[in-house]
Amino acid sequence: MIKVGIIGATGYAGNELVRILKGHKEAEIVHYGSRSYVGQRYADVFRNCTEIVPEECGDDNIEEIADKADVIFTATPQGYCAGIVTEEVLKKCRIIDLSADFRLKDVSVYEKWYKIEHKSPQFIKEAVYGLCEINREDIKKTRLLANPGCYTTCSILTVYPLAKAGLIDLSTLIIDAKSGTSGAGRSAKTDNLFCEVNENIKAYGVATHRHTPEIEEQLSYASGEQVMLNFTPHLVPMNRGILVTAYANVKKGVTEDMIRKAYADCYQNEKFVRVLNKGICPETRWVEGSNYTDVNFVLDERTGRVIMMGALDNIVKGAAGQAVQNMNLMFGLPEDMGLDLVPMFP
Amino acid sequence: MIKVGIIGATGYAGNELVRILKGHKEAEIVHYGSRSYVGQRYADVFRNCTEIVPEECGDDNIEEIADKADVIFTATPQGYCAGIVTEEVLKKCRIIDLSADFRLKDVSVYEKWYKIEHKSPQFIKEAVYGLCEINREDIKKTRLLANPGCYTTCSILTVYPLAKAGLIDLSTLIIDAKSGTSGAGRSAKTDNLFCEVNENIKAYGVATHRHTPEIEEQLSYASGEQVMLNFTPHLVPMNRGILVTAYANVKKGVTEDMIRKAYADCYQNEKFVRVLNKGICPETRWVEGSNYTDVNFVLDERTGRVIMMGALDNIVKGAAGQAVQNMNLMFGLPEDMGLDLVPMFP
Amino acid sequence: MIKVGIIGATGYAGNELVRILKGHKEAEIVHYGSRSYVGQRYADVFRNCTEIVPEECGDDNIEEIADKADVIFTATPQGYCAGIVTEEVLKKCRIIDLSADFRLKDVSVYEKWYKIEHKSPQFIKEAVYGLCEINREDIKKTRLLANPGCYTTCSILTVYPLAKAGLIDLSTLIIDAKSGTSGAGRSAKTDNLFCEVNENIKAYGVATHRHTPEIEEQLSYASGEQVMLNFTPHLVPMNRGILVTAYANVKKGVTEDMIRKAYADCYQNEKFVRVLNKGICPETRWVEGSNYTDVNFVLDERTGRVIMMGALDNIVKGAAGQAVQNMNLMFGLPEDMGLDLVPMFP
Amino acid sequence: MIKVGIIGATGYAGNELVRILKGHKEAEIVHYGSRSYVGQRYADVFRNCTEIVPEECGDDNIEEIADKADVIFTATPQGYCAGIVTEEVLKKCRIIDLSADFRLKDVSVYEKWYKIEHKSPQFIKEAVYGLCEINREDIKKTRLLANPGCYTTCSILTVYPLAKAGLIDLSTLIIDAKSGTSGAGRSAKTDNLFCEVNENIKAYGVATHRHTPEIEEQLSYASGEQVMLNFTPHLVPMNRGILVTAYANVKKGVTEDMIRKAYADCYQNEKFVRVLNKGICPETRWVEGSNYTDVNFVLDERTGRVIMMGALDNIVKGAAGQAVQNMNLMFGLPEDMGLDLVPMFP
Repeated sequence: MIKVGIIGATGYAGNELVRILKGHKEAEIVHYGSRSYVGQRYADVFRNCTEIVPEECGDDNIEEIADKADVIFTATPQGYCAGIVTEEVLKKCRIIDLSADFRLKDVSVYEKWYKIEHKSPQFIKEAVYGLCEINREDIKKTRLLANPGCYTTCSILTVYPLAKAGLIDLSTLIIDAKSGTSGAGRSAKTDNLFCEVNENIKAYGVATHRHTPEIEEQLSYASGEQVMLNFTPHLVPMNRGILVTAYANVKKGVTEDMIRKAYADCYQNEKFVRVLNKGICPETRWVEGSNYTDVNFVLDERTGRVIMMGALDNIVKGAAGQAVQNMNLMFGLPEDMGLDLVPMFP
Repeated sequence: MIKVGIIGATGYAGNELVRILKGHKEAEIVHYGSRSYVGQRYADVFRNCTEIVPEECGDDNIEEIADKADVIFTATPQGYCAGIVTEEVLKKCRIIDLSADFRLKDVSVYEKWYKIEHKSPQFIKEAVYGLCEINREDIKKTRLLANPGCYTTCSILTVYPLAKAGLIDLSTLIIDAKSGTSGAGRSAKTDNLFCEVNENIKAYGVATHRHTPEIEEQLSYASGEQVMLNFTPHLVPMNRGILVTAYANVKKGVTEDMIRKAYADCYQNEKFVRVLNKGICPETRWVEGSNYTDVNFVLDERTGRVIMMGALDNIVKGAAGQAVQNMNLMFGLPEDMGLDLVPMFP
Repeated sequence: MIKVGIIGATGYAGNELVRILKGHKEAEIVHYGSRSYVGQRYADVFRNCTEIVPEECGDDNIEEIADKADVIFTATPQGYCAGIVTEEVLKKCRIIDLSADFRLKDVSVYEKWYKIEHKSPQFIKEAVYGLCEINREDIKKTRLLANPGCYTTCSILTVYPLAKAGLIDLSTLIIDAKSGTSGAGRSAKTDNLFCEVNENIKAYGVATHRHTPEIEEQLSYASGEQVMLNFTPHLVPMNRGILVTAYANVKKGVTEDMIRKAYADCYQNEKFVRVLNKGICPETRWVEGSNYTDVNFVLDERTGRVIMMGALDNIVKGAAGQAVQNMNLMFGLPEDMGLDLVPMFP
Repeated sequence: MIKVGIIGATGYAGNELVRILKGHKEAEIVHYGSRSYVGQRYADVFRNCTEIVPEECGDDNIEEIADKADVIFTATPQGYCAGIVTEEVLKKCRIIDLSADFRLKDVSVYEKWYKIEHKSPQFIKEAVYGLCEINREDIKKTRLLANPGCYTTCSILTVYPLAKAGLIDLSTLIIDAKSGTSGAGRSAKTDNLFCEVNENIKAYGVATHRHTPEIEEQLSYASGEQVMLNFTPHLVPMNRGILVTAYANVKKGVTEDMIRKAYADCYQNEKFVRVLNKGICPETRWVEGSNYTDVNFVLDERTGRVIMMGALDNIVKGAAGQAVQNMNLMFGLPEDMGLDLVPMFP
C-alpha cells in the first residue's frame, strides 16, 4: 500500500486526487494538506467527501509528511514546490508536483514566463516531465515528477504524432484552446463568479499564457526542431474539459493516410489516448470524469492545412488523473490502476 | 459473474447502467438493447464508451436475452416492461424494471395516473418496490424488481423517517422538487433544447405528476395512514441532480432532537444515505455521480413546521445506481459493490 | 429631464439601472457612484457600457449628489441608505432605496432579521413601500421610496390577489422560491464561483431569510390578518430570474373561477403583471430582461390546495425596473416610460 | 410607418426581429409568418410576447404579404427565399433575406457549399450584401438585401481592416470561431438537447462550414486578392454570442500602431463596432442583447502573428439587429433607430 500525502488538497485538483485515490486499491491517503483550512475536517470543505474522508486538513510541514508518506503530491501554486523540496525530502519520499516548477528545463524560460525566481534550480535536471505516453520509461525511474499542465497535456497529445513524424510545418502551428472554468481554481475572484463566466466566452492570456513554453519545449524534443507557436486559451462556461483545435500546414506530399498512420503509431497501444474514427470530432462531454484524451484530425486539401483536435478532462488527464498514472508508473503498478473510469455523461 | 442484459441501453439511465456495471467486478453486460440504434455500435451512440464497449446494439427479443442473461434491466418507457414480461422469462432470469410498471400495487391508480392499460397486472403483486433502505429483505428474494422513480426516491428518503416515527402531520405534507434535465430523457423535443432549458426554471406537471401516487403509497406504508400530498416538480438548467424541499407541520411537542433521532434511527447504518450536520443543507453538487442521498432538516419553531431536504443524483441513486444496488441485494453480493463512487466535483 | 444619481452603480442592480435609464427619454444620469471603483471609468468596470457611458465612477457624498440630482437611487448593502439619509438631503431630492432599510415599518423586526441597528428610524414612517401595483397612489406622493426586494416582489404579486380576496387560509401559506445567481451580488465569494453554482441547486437561509418579514408584512396589510409563513429560497444555476411556487389551502367553497376572478380583479389593468392562461406555468425565460411578472395558479381539488406561481426578472421587476417604475410614478411620468422592454429570449 | 412582414417569425431570429421591431418607432409588423404554427397565436409559441403580440401566425403566401408590407424579412432555411422571390414581389416590396440565398455572387459556389440548386439566380446580381459598415451606400439603394451570416459578420468585421489595409498575409489567415447554441436553431434535434450541449464544447463542420466562402468572398473584395482560409466553428454551452479568434502573419514592417490605425480608419465613426482599448479582449457577455460588435487585436512580436478578436450577439448583429439596421438604411431612417440597446449583463 502506497502512503500518499497531498499538499494543496483543498483545490479542485486536490479534491480530484482524493476522489481518484479513494478508488485506488494500492494507495492510502495519509495527509490532507491545506493552507487555508488547517484543523477543519476535509469533508466540511468538500462535502462530496462526507462520511468518506473523516480526516482533518493538516498544515504542510513537508519533512513531517515525508516521514509518513511514500509519495507527496503538490497541487499548489507556482513556486511552492520549488520552495520546499530538499534533498532530504527526496531521499525519504517521491514528489509529484502538479505545478509548473519543474516542467521547463531552462530556468530562465521559467523565470521569464512565470515572473518568479526559481528557488531550487538544482533539481530541474533530474525532474522528469510526466507525460506518460511520451516519457514512460524515464518516469518509472524518477523521484521528482513534473506533472504537465492541463492545456499542455491536451495540446501536446494532439500535435505530438505529426510533430514527431515530421508531417507538418511547425513554424505554422497555431493552437486555439478552450477550457472549462475549474482550470481557474477555487479562489474567490470576481472574474470567476457564476454571473461573469456563465453566458460568456473570452480569450485570455493572448500571446502570453504560461503554458506556451511548455508546449514548445516538448514539441521541440519530439520534432528535433526549435518550435515557436501561438497558443490562445479561452474560458468556456462549463466546469470541466479542455478542447484543443490546432492548425498547421502539412508538408508537401503528406496524405490523410500518412497522418492517420502517425497517430496510430503513437497511440494504438495507448489506453488513455483514443484516436477517433474519421469524421468524428473530439468533444469534452465524452471524456468528462475520465483519464482519456480523444484526438482526431481533418486534412483540408483546399488550404493544405491539417486541423488537429483533442479533448480531455482538465482535472483528470490534465491534472490529478495523470498524476496518479505517473504514480502508478513510478511505483511499478499497472499504469491504469484506479483510473479505469468510464467517462460520465451527461 | 452475473450476466446482465439491458433493454433501453441508449437512454441516459441505460448509459449510466453501462458506466456503473463496467466498474462492477461481478457483472458482465451481455446485451445492449436499443430500439432506435439496432446494429449500430454502442460506442457510436454514446462516445464516452469508445474503446470501452465494442458491442453493437441489439434488438429486444426478451426470450433470447433471458436465455443468456441472469438479470435484465429494462430502462424503457412506461408500459414496455409490462408488455413483455412473462412467466417463462421470469423463470429464466430476474427483471429489474426502471419504469413505473410495477411500482404501484393498485393497478387502477397506475392506469389513472399513467393513462395506459397495464398489460400484465398478474405480476404486480409479486413485484417488490426496490427502495433498498426500506425494503431490503423483500428485495433479496424477488425475481421482479420495481426500481423506484428518481423524484420518488429522493422524496421518500427525505420524508420517510418522520412519517415512520409519526412526528409530522402528514395531511400538511408538501413536496417541492427540482430536477436536472437528464430526467427528461434523450428524445428530441423542442422543450428540452439547450436554449429552452438554459437560463430558465419552471414548474411542470403541477398537481398531476405521475410520481405523486408512488410517493403517497410508500409514505402510507411507512406511516400506516392514507397519505395525500402535493408534489410539484421543477426543471432546473443542469444535467443531473434532484433536490427535494418538503414541508410539514410537526406534531405537538416534537423537538429538534426527536427529529434528528428519527433520521438517525433510519439511516445511521445506511451507507448511501448521509444525514448532514445541523445547519448544512443538501446540495446536488455534493452527490453528483454517486449513489448517495444527502438529507437534513430545519425545524422552524416560529411556524411549527419542519423543512426536510434531500439531494441525490437522479441517474444514479434515482435510477441506475439504485438498480445496481438492488441487483447486488438480489444476487447476494455486498450491497455497495460497484457503487463505491466518490461524488465528482465540480 | 430628471437628473438621476446612482449610489452603488457598479453592482448588478446598479448596472441594470444604467441600462434602463439610458433608454429612458426623460432621465439623465448625473452620478455613477461606486465605493470600490472611484476614479475609474464606469465602462471599464462594466464593459457593456463601452462608448455608451463616458463618465467615471464618483464617490458617494450624498449632499453633493443631492445638489445636482432630482432623485438618488441607492443600490447599496443594507444599512447604507439609513446611514446617510438626512432631512437636508430629502428636502433637495428624492430617494429610491433599493435596500431593505425602509421596507419594514417595525424597526425591531428590521433589527432582528437584519442584525444591524437602524440609523435613521425617524424616516421609516414616511417611507412608502414601492410595490407599484399595490401602493400606486402613495408612491406618487413620497420623497423616500423603499423599493421592494426581488423575492418579495415576486412572492407578493403571486399571492396578493388571494390574500386580499380572502380565498386562502393564510396560516397554511408556504412559499418555495428559486432565484438566479445575480441576486447574490457581485462580490467575490467562493460560494458564488462558477464551478460552485453551476450544476447545483441548493436551499439557503431556510427559515431565516430576511425577505420573510417583508412578505409577511405586506400580505398582512392585504388580508387584514397577521400572516406568518415559511419562505425558502433556492439558488439556481442561471443569471437572472425568480420563480415562486406558493402553496395554501383554499377556504371552503372556493372555486377555480373565484380564484381566477381574484387575479383578474387585481391585475387586468396592470401592464406589468400578466395572468397567464389556464394550464400555462410561469417560466423565468419568458420575462428575462423585462419588467413583467407572470403569474398563474393550479387548484388541486384532490388536496384542497392552490398552487400559485410567479416569475420575474430579479434585476428588473425585482430591482432596477421597479425602481424606475417608481421613479416614473413619483415624477408624474407614464408609469411604463423606459420600461417597454420585450423579454429577451433565448 | 414601415409595414413589415416576417416569414419565419417563429425561429429564434424571427422572434428577435419581433423583439427589436416592437421597440422601433417607425416600423409595424403586419405579418407573423410560420410554417409550423399557422393559426396559433404568436404569443403561445413565444410566450415572451404574451400581451404584447395579439396576432396569430399566418401562412406564407408571399404575394399576399407583399400587398400589405413595405418590406419582408425572410428568416427561413436556405433555399426558401430563392424559391419564392419574383419580379412581381420585388416590384411591390423590398426583401431582406436572412438566409444565404443571395449572399454569394457565384452561384456555383453557393450550389457546391450548400448542396442545393439555386432557384432564382437571376436576382443574385442585384442583391446587395448587407454588411452595413462596409456596403452602406449600396444597401440604401437595393430592393433585395442579403443579410450576412452570424459567423460571417463577426469574422469579417474582425479581419476586414487589416485585409483592406494590406497589413496581413491573407494566405496565412485562420479563423477559429465559437458560438452560442441559438445559432443552431429551434428545431428538435438530439444533438441540441440541453444535456448534450451543456458541459461540452466541440468543433463541427471542420473545413466544410458553409460560412467559409462568404467570408472568403468579402475579404477578397476588401483586399483585392483571392482569399482562401480555414474557418472552424465551435459550439459553446451558452444561448447567445459569437467570439472569433483569427490568426495571420503580419507583413514585414507592420507595427502595432499601424494595425491600430487600420481599425480606427474603418471603425472610428461606426457606432456599432467598438474597437476596445489595448489589452482588453472582446467577450460575448459585453455585447449580449445589443447590436454591437467588439473588436481588438494582439500583435505577437515573438511569432510575427496578429491575433484578431471579435465578439457579437449572433441573433442581433449576427441576424435580426443587422437586418433592422439594413432596413433603416434602405428606408432612409437613422441607421440606429430601434437599435439603441445597451448590452444586457449579466
